Amino acid sequence: MAKVIRARDYRWDSVDLKQYKTEGTGFRDITRQTLLGEGSDESRLNFITRYFEVQPGGYSSLEHHEHPHAVVVIRGRGEVILQDRVEPIELHDCVYISSHTVHQFHPLGDEPLGFLCIVDRERDRPQIPDDESVARLRENDAVGRRLKI
Amino acid sequence: MAKVIRARDYRWDSVDLKQYKTEGTGFRDITRQTLLGEGSDESRLNFITRYFEVQPGGYSSLEHHEHPHAVVVIRGRGEVILQDRVEPIELHDCVYISSHTVHQFHPLGDEPLGFLCIVDRERDRPQIPDDESVARLRENDAVGRRLKI
Repeated sequence: MAKVIRARDYRWDSVDLKQYKTEGTGFRDITRQTLLGEGSDESRLNFITRYFEVQPGGYSSLEHHEHPHAVVVIRGRGEVILQDRVEPIELHDCVYISSHTVHQFHPLGDEPLGFLCIVDRERDRPQIPDDESVARLRENDAVGRRLKI
Repeated sequence: MAKVIRARDYRWDSVDLKQYKTEGTGFRDITRQTLLGEGSDESRLNFITRYFEVQPGGYSSLEHHEHPHAVVVIRGRGEVILQDRVEPIELHDCVYISSHTVHQFHPLGDEPLGFLCIVDRERDRPQIPDDESVARLRENDAVGRRLKI
């Protein structure tokens, strides 16, 4: 059944606000809402549209996985680690995260960083980079300064 | 290769602005930009993230199809026809358009209506409702007043 899911102030009707969690990895002050694709009505969608919000000072897990991410920023600004570089991101910027690119999102400024992140319904679990990979990432000064574990 | 696609004023770097077109159907003052999923780098994505923008007075095609739509409004406000009803839509509202729901987007006010619309990469072509279906839709006053062909 077709439907409208109404938004107000980055919350959506009938959508649960969840604490973000990737087992065994560091993350801070981040929430997840699954906007489209999780309800039984929406099982025909082969992809899931989620909204993540990271508060100032917070960050997402440093992780990688086989499935790619399609990201669209809809609140605030920040930086994203993409393997061996750090890129600034602002309102409406898109990020394509290819397979096994290690990534982590960081807000900048006083506003939370909020972004849509669309993924395949069927997908592999995120993996945490091992110590050797993290050591290699840290060799890049910009990445080393920014990454949190 | 992971990448950031930068936005400015609802245009994106390296993304073509296209006139929207569904063959044989009425539409007006609407553009399409494919943000993620069309480049060769992004072929691993099983879905395509597009941005549609409808100028005041414009409208999208009245159409239906097997594949569902996942829509997130990111600019302006408007109304959407969902088969036998008309629903208001505002910033960040989501719309789930289920299989073969006849739909049409209309902006309201002075601002264009802009929305992300995510679809499967492999999908059927949109169909135009036949005269009998349109006559049935028109039986609903709210829909009849709003729909454009």
